Amino acid sequence: MTPSQLADALAGFRPLSAELGDATLDLDRRRRCGFPEVVYGEGKPVETLERIFRRLLADGVEVLATRVSADKAAALRPAFPELRYNEVARTLRIPGATPEATGERADRVGRVVVVTAGTSDLPVAEEARETLDCMGVEVERVQDVGVAGPHRLPAQLDRFRGAHAVVVVAGMEGALPSVVGGYVDCPVVGVPTSVGYGANFQGLSALLSMLNSCAANVVVVNIDAGFKGGYVAGMIARGKRKDVS
Amino acid sequence: MTPSQLADALAGFRPLSAELGDATLDLDRRRRCGFPEVVYGEGKPVETLERIFRRLLADGVEVLATRVSADKAAALRPAFPELRYNEVARTLRIPGATPEATGERADRVGRVVVVTAGTSDLPVAEEARETLDCMGVEVERVQDVGVAGPHRLPAQLDRFRGAHAVVVVAGMEGALPSVVGGYVDCPVVGVPTSVGYGANFQGLSALLSMLNSCAANVVVVNIDAGFKGGYVAGMIARGKRKDVS
Amino acid sequence: MTPSQLADALAGFRPLSAELGDATLDLDRRRRCGFPEVVYGEGKPVETLERIFRRLLADGVEVLATRVSADKAAALRPAFPELRYNEVARTLRIPGATPEATGERADRVGRVVVVTAGTSDLPVAEEARETLDCMGVEVERVQDVGVAGPHRLPAQLDRFRGAHAVVVVAGMEGALPSVVGGYVDCPVVGVPTSVGYGANFQGLSALLSMLNSCAANVVVVNIDAGFKGGYVAGMIARGKRKDVS
Amino acid sequence: MTPSQLADALAGFRPLSAELGDATLDLDRRRRCGFPEVVYGEGKPVETLERIFRRLLADGVEVLATRVSADKAAALRPAFPELRYNEVARTLRIPGATPEATGERADRVGRVVVVTAGTSDLPVAEEARETLDCMGVEVERVQDVGVAGPHRLPAQLDRFRGAHAVVVVAGMEGALPSVVGGYVDCPVVGVPTSVGYGANFQGLSALLSMLNSCAANVVVVNIDAGFKGGYVAGMIARGKRKDVS
Amino acid sequence: MTPSQLADALAGFRPLSAELGDATLDLDRRRRCGFPEVVYGEGKPVETLERIFRRLLADGVEVLATRVSADKAAALRPAFPELRYNEVARTLRIPGATPEATGERADRVGRVVVVTAGTSDLPVAEEARETLDCMGVEVERVQDVGVAGPHRLPAQLDRFRGAHAVVVVAGMEGALPSVVGGYVDCPVVGVPTSVGYGANFQGLSALLSMLNSCAANVVVVNIDAGFKGGYVAGMIARGKRKDVS
Amino acid sequence: MTPSQLADALAGFRPLSAELGDATLDLDRRRRCGFPEVVYGEGKPVETLERIFRRLLADGVEVLATRVSADKAAALRPAFPELRYNEVARTLRIPGATPEATGERADRVGRVVVVTAGTSDLPVAEEARETLDCMGVEVERVQDVGVAGPHRLPAQLDRFRGAHAVVVVAGMEGALPSVVGGYVDCPVVGVPTSVGYGANFQGLSALLSMLNSCAANVVVVNIDAGFKGGYVAGMIARGKRKDVS
Amino acid sequence: MTPSQLADALAGFRPLSAELGDATLDLDRRRRCGFPEVVYGEGKPVETLERIFRRLLADGVEVLATRVSADKAAALRPAFPELRYNEVARTLRIPGATPEATGERADRVGRVVVVTAGTSDLPVAEEARETLDCMGVEVERVQDVGVAGPHRLPAQLDRFRGAHAVVVVAGMEGALPSVVGGYVDCPVVGVPTSVGYGANFQGLSALLSMLNSCAANVVVVNIDAGFKGGYVAGMIARGKRKDVS
Amino acid sequence: MTPSQLADALAGFRPLSAELGDATLDLDRRRRCGFPEVVYGEGKPVETLERIFRRLLADGVEVLATRVSADKAAALRPAFPELRYNEVARTLRIPGATPEATGERADRVGRVVVVTAGTSDLPVAEEARETLDCMGVEVERVQDVGVAGPHRLPAQLDRFRGAHAVVVVAGMEGALPSVVGGYVDCPVVGVPTSVGYGANFQGLSALLSMLNSCAANVVVVNIDAGFKGGYVAGMIARGKRKDVS
Repeated sequence: MTPSQLADALAGFRPLSAELGDATLDLDRRRRCGFPEVVYGEGKPVETLERIFRRLLADGVEVLATRVSADKAAALRPAFPELRYNEVARTLRIPGATPEATGERADRVGRVVVVTAGTSDLPVAEEARETLDCMGVEVERVQDVGVAGPHRLPAQLDRFRGAHAVVVVAGMEGALPSVVGGYVDCPVVGVPTSVGYGANFQGLSALLSMLNSCAANVVVVNIDAGFKGGYVAGMIARGKRKDVS
Repeated sequence: MTPSQLADALAGFRPLSAELGDATLDLDRRRRCGFPEVVYGEGKPVETLERIFRRLLADGVEVLATRVSADKAAALRPAFPELRYNEVARTLRIPGATPEATGERADRVGRVVVVTAGTSDLPVAEEARETLDCMGVEVERVQDVGVAGPHRLPAQLDRFRGAHAVVVVAGMEGALPSVVGGYVDCPVVGVPTSVGYGANFQGLSALLSMLNSCAANVVVVNIDAGFKGGYVAGMIARGKRKDVS
Repeated sequence: MTPSQLADALAGFRPLSAELGDATLDLDRRRRCGFPEVVYGEGKPVETLERIFRRLLADGVEVLATRVSADKAAALRPAFPELRYNEVARTLRIPGATPEATGERADRVGRVVVVTAGTSDLPVAEEARETLDCMGVEVERVQDVGVAGPHRLPAQLDRFRGAHAVVVVAGMEGALPSVVGGYVDCPVVGVPTSVGYGANFQGLSALLSMLNSCAANVVVVNIDAGFKGGYVAGMIARGKRKDVS
Repeated sequence: MTPSQLADALAGFRPLSAELGDATLDLDRRRRCGFPEVVYGEGKPVETLERIFRRLLADGVEVLATRVSADKAAALRPAFPELRYNEVARTLRIPGATPEATGERADRVGRVVVVTAGTSDLPVAEEARETLDCMGVEVERVQDVGVAGPHRLPAQLDRFRGAHAVVVVAGMEGALPSVVGGYVDCPVVGVPTSVGYGANFQGLSALLSMLNSCAANVVVVNIDAGFKGGYVAGMIARGKRKDVS
Repeated sequence: MTPSQLADALAGFRPLSAELGDATLDLDRRRRCGFPEVVYGEGKPVETLERIFRRLLADGVEVLATRVSADKAAALRPAFPELRYNEVARTLRIPGATPEATGERADRVGRVVVVTAGTSDLPVAEEARETLDCMGVEVERVQDVGVAGPHRLPAQLDRFRGAHAVVVVAGMEGALPSVVGGYVDCPVVGVPTSVGYGANFQGLSALLSMLNSCAANVVVVNIDAGFKGGYVAGMIARGKRKDVS
Repeated sequence: MTPSQLADALAGFRPLSAELGDATLDLDRRRRCGFPEVVYGEGKPVETLERIFRRLLADGVEVLATRVSADKAAALRPAFPELRYNEVARTLRIPGATPEATGERADRVGRVVVVTAGTSDLPVAEEARETLDCMGVEVERVQDVGVAGPHRLPAQLDRFRGAHAVVVVAGMEGALPSVVGGYVDCPVVGVPTSVGYGANFQGLSALLSMLNSCAANVVVVNIDAGFKGGYVAGMIARGKRKDVS
Repeated sequence: MTPSQLADALAGFRPLSAELGDATLDLDRRRRCGFPEVVYGEGKPVETLERIFRRLLADGVEVLATRVSADKAAALRPAFPELRYNEVARTLRIPGATPEATGERADRVGRVVVVTAGTSDLPVAEEARETLDCMGVEVERVQDVGVAGPHRLPAQLDRFRGAHAVVVVAGMEGALPSVVGGYVDCPVVGVPTSVGYGANFQGLSALLSMLNSCAANVVVVNIDAGFKGGYVAGMIARGKRKDVS
Repeated sequence: MTPSQLADALAGFRPLSAELGDATLDLDRRRRCGFPEVVYGEGKPVETLERIFRRLLADGVEVLATRVSADKAAALRPAFPELRYNEVARTLRIPGATPEATGERADRVGRVVVVTAGTSDLPVAEEARETLDCMGVEVERVQDVGVAGPHRLPAQLDRFRGAHAVVVVAGMEGALPSVVGGYVDCPVVGVPTSVGYGANFQGLSALLSMLNSCAANVVVVNIDAGFKGGYVAGMIARGKRKDVS
């Protein structure tokens, strides 16, 4: 391929960034990957977050930031009175100006079930749910159906019908995605959590379980990665509708 | 939920198995999960494999078995003259009697790109490709585009258009899924391989890289798990079509 | 097996749950597994604990909760004046209304010895002892008999006679279960603790020691898992009596 | 305790050994721990094994040796024509002279279920079964009921009734013990196997899963430790009967 | 070699130390290794630091200390009013008396690019930049060009021209050094950071990625080792000029 | 061996303990092992420590306790006005009533060199020095002679002459014991410390280095185990003198 | 940056590849990175190697392939009679047609010392030496100067004078790079080897040592990565000359 | 210290080497460290070994080589007819010309007990025994006294009297050194072995146990390091006698 051919190839992707001091914002993400950049809040000072949020809003997109502490959210509220902070999920959202970016869509696209094995897995599941909600996907929540109470999951099977993807959030031995995987006909995104103690090794146990799942439809994301679990499930769910139109 | 309600719930899933001595075959898998059971060949004697294959063929499905050694394939050929063995992928397939199970479908459903970072990743990629082919999905192959030659991937970007999912097979530092993830608008299934040496620790390096990917659309399966990578990608690709009809 | 046969099979187990907002309580556990659900307190807010406790008491069972901080216990006391909190074990118990659930049984069933290797292993041993007491099992305590003082254990051997099971709680090199295992004719449940430093790696050393024990009667539970160690030992001890009656 | 008191205490245990060159045989094991020494065959030359077997037979006990290669078994057969070698389990047994030691007991004591998750877990399960058989315990086998086919286990639940203990043998994600644990009212001994690949890390994944099981009745032994899993289950099962008489 | 020959050999290196109580300062480092000793501030009390700084200044060199907390810097300021503290990098510098040691050199020697993958990698990059600045090397900074936004790095390629070395600071999957390595004709010093969570394991993921880089020109230093990354890059950059003169 | 013979054998060791509530003190340690029990202070409440100290003093021995926080030491001082607390080593000593137990022996027995690689290794080295001092061994201290300043160690070699053992305390890459081992004709006890960061993994790096030392006279103790390093070195040093008398 | 600006930027790098079936050869590597692609022989069939070698020779470059087994080298010799195979290093070279690519350059550029700690490290050191020789760099070899014989390295210090970089190859505790680093004024590239046993864990010990080196001029490459160690050292050595001309 | 002072210091150590192609023999080891160099046979070709042996014999010392395969020993026998090869230990010895170096000393110096936990630990124990024998130390062997048969060790306690050091060789859970440590008044050198399976992880379990031993007199060497265990014990044992003369 010659340089000019490469230029043509890349032109189809139109890369565009915004340099914001210590951050380089990827403004072309929505066109290229189907969804605007989501802000990872950990380790970013309030000033940096404010600069990034303003730039994103200027582009007309709804802001979603993850791993934002309650303190930072409080410090940012004066600048963005309309922000909504989820204390359990530690997510922050600011609706954009366009109808599509208001976060109040009536027209949900696709359907994802978010399942937790235990009560302590809730914060990670909530991060996934907020992400899916922000993507405009319909979310069904099934809670505390870990494998030690084997009748709890079958009792909820009706709620899985029609799902385009399932997000299973589990700590400890992380067995739930395998069991769910055996009941459904769509991809299962396993999100291991650091819930547990001792030989759990901060989530390693659940992570290895899910990677070694004997169910063929189980894929895995990082420990406690509720955002990524929700994001990929949302991408699968939205993708289906796109084919139709 | 009462036991009778549970029975109703489960009736919708109609569990059915076949006891074959040391194996319990899951005959209900296709109805429940959308695809018949795929046979994991490692550690199963030839006699067990033959029993399983015959039972699956009796059900009218195409047989797909992974991790089958060349020796076992040769020993099974007299019983199944029509079997096809892929030496690189170490997969074995036997077409079924019905048109849908002949493995010669003209009507491909969905589109998946299978990418390798280096030449040595080929066996794992081939296992993914055979799985996708068996699922009736159209497969595009892009080879040897690891990140150290940064112009190789952009030069092939046209081939990713319209993909419902991408399977990226990479060993060593496992960086390729992150880079691919930044270019495409569909899920990327990272398959780490054990290719490498030293601090690679039999694929641990690539596995951790992919789990920690900064690209939001990257999910991961087990090391060298070409089958699972292909299977989930195929499930995503087929799912889209289903919505339409 | 047909669905109706499955319903029959499951009817024998009568699964029943209570949905309590973010928790799904397993009310059928006692019938199915022989003992009601024990509440894992870590990561559950006070409100959730209160809801769970009320529901369990309504079922007429004694409440046992583990990993409850002193703060939470204090916050719960107004609602449950009769609760007993063990500061060392960090366990909380609330006697039920029925005689069997008062926690003051005179008729102990079976006998278990709980042994510690060192003084710092006491909190984990206390969690085991509270669990056994709650199960109505007689408990004998033998303390600080680690292997470096080799005469300390033989001097206490009389106290092991007639034990149905022994729980051995040990940190550091975790050698004590192997030594105890060589003296007794019943199962030894090893509970590794995170007591130690450096190459102890938060209990990994003791865990590996116990898993590799050359004594054939040693089984292992998670690091610091005093509850589980006590629970299984209690199950073994109670089971014997059941056979007699 | 004075030395003479210690002597009294130890007299109750009457330690007796036989020095056989490079091995020191524990002849007092049966009296002290309830069952004679079982021989670990790995790394012992044929001559050493022969010396040990002769000494054990002279004591009137049935010989059980584990991890014996087929070659060693063949080399030992001339000296012990009555030996029985199990090729799958790699165990070797030689019946003793007394009725109790003939290995042909009609009077089984207690009942244990040995469960496998997959076909490849069979060798480890067979080692457990041979051990239980040698202990005179009734064994029920349930095979290939891993969690990915969720209907397979419930379909076999009748066979678990009345079990004093369950041995669950599983590789890969090792989820089966947790699920079984939720259905039964007796201890579950989890035996992780090295079956799997990649992030399985030779059984580490299954081991960690079982240690972190959310089911309270699950204990764990070493990876591939079929003998120890069977031995402890047998000890639990035999113990019940002892109480009655 | 005889002792006297050894003395001759060592005389060429003239080892000289200063004993400062609990520290033994290496005063010969500049002659032997080309640059004076840099002080590692972690774990050293303020009094020790003051003694070391005074001795180094007496030798006429500029002081550079790393991993100095803001508290310690404040406590040291009265003694060294001219000290400059970088809060992000946590470095402390005190210019020396000679022109070469003023830290205000106009004559920069060599050129190094310091690149970060994300905003959170900045503190480590700043430590590298301060080190290079102190060595009199020209530094170019390129920020937040991680691989998930694949157009960000190529857009900055002009700034890499003429670099004698590149320092790439990256956490998470640590893929950036491999990509940079494919674009430049000089050594790339990868500095993995502990930025990330979960399976990142405090920087292990990025470390393994960089060690397994498929780019032949990538070398690695310790996790978060901004100083060492900058130091070696500076050594390479300065070395080139030396050859000329 | 018959029980009476065993009693005779054990009589030579006269095991004696003191039960102090949650602790079982080994009073026979001095006779059996040559030195009284040293108290590990971590995790023991002040009341337990006080009970143990009183009992040891009643036996006429000097008390040595390690890992005692400054708070605990302050709380214990009213009860033991003569206690001496070393803030760096976190050790606590109380002289006994007999001349041998005053901690002021003029007659030192044997000679040990305690070496540190860096300034931050001092606390661990001080723990070793206090232990040796308490054992009545002469201690020589050599500080901050890590390998990066290769002339620092040879410059101090005269101070190693006549040493019966050397304790080398080092963090980071832990290379110093190997280098010292090549210069001396006595055992070198390597004490890895957790000093360092990143891939140091809390001392694992130094631990592995010392275990793999190519110097044949290097043995290793646990990470940060200053007490044990000093204790064994003291045992070697004292042992020599014993032979003479 | 607009697409056309990106095209301009990339034009300066002129990416060019050759598709050779299962390999995509990077023909632009020499222009972009200063040296043509070196072939990693592991896992590539003989036919693939032959195709790659022919294409490289057609481009007029000398071929260097690493990790080539003796069998493969023998199979390739008929096609390339002029190939030279180094059995110790397992490298294969084929001189090119141009004078620069004959491998017989008289005009060496820069100087690198390759040091081994022990005799068993030789194969890795030879791989580094062949790489440097192929790059036209002068190589000095210093062998078997591990730290346990502390006089061996100082005796060879004269041979390090004037070196632009030093490659230190060491297994076991990997201490040598730190010691060398303290003597020289140029970068030290540490190459850990898998030489050793036990707690060496296939080179992990040496790898961690080198990463944690207290010498500021030590960088690290992968375990057994002789090629990469030599390559980066060569790049540093050649770079110096480039500045002059 | 000036260079001349350093020369004086080093003169006391008189470093002398012999360059033998790929090996640099340390001829000064005996004077400096008290014992000549012992040859590590692994990975050294027969020719190299022959050169080294000849040079050592020329110096009048007895040759001891470890980790020598039976094949290499056979290949070396023609050149050294007097060599003695121990097949279990895989050690090779060649007596020197002087009386002290004949390996037939009547005058043993010091006394060491070498203990094994199980039969499979014998090869490592034999390597220790050969080393001690070569050092002229009296060796007592105690075999197969692992902790699961708790009466076996006390029955042998008489044989430990008067020992200057004890070498304890143990695999699996590695508990024996702690138990031995509680009985003796001399240093215990723990040698973990790779004997075991599963969670033993090639000796890691025994290694961690020994490092975390609660017995204060236990030090540790590398996994399977029989030579080093014997060497240090011998150094301790010999040192005592030296004090007397």
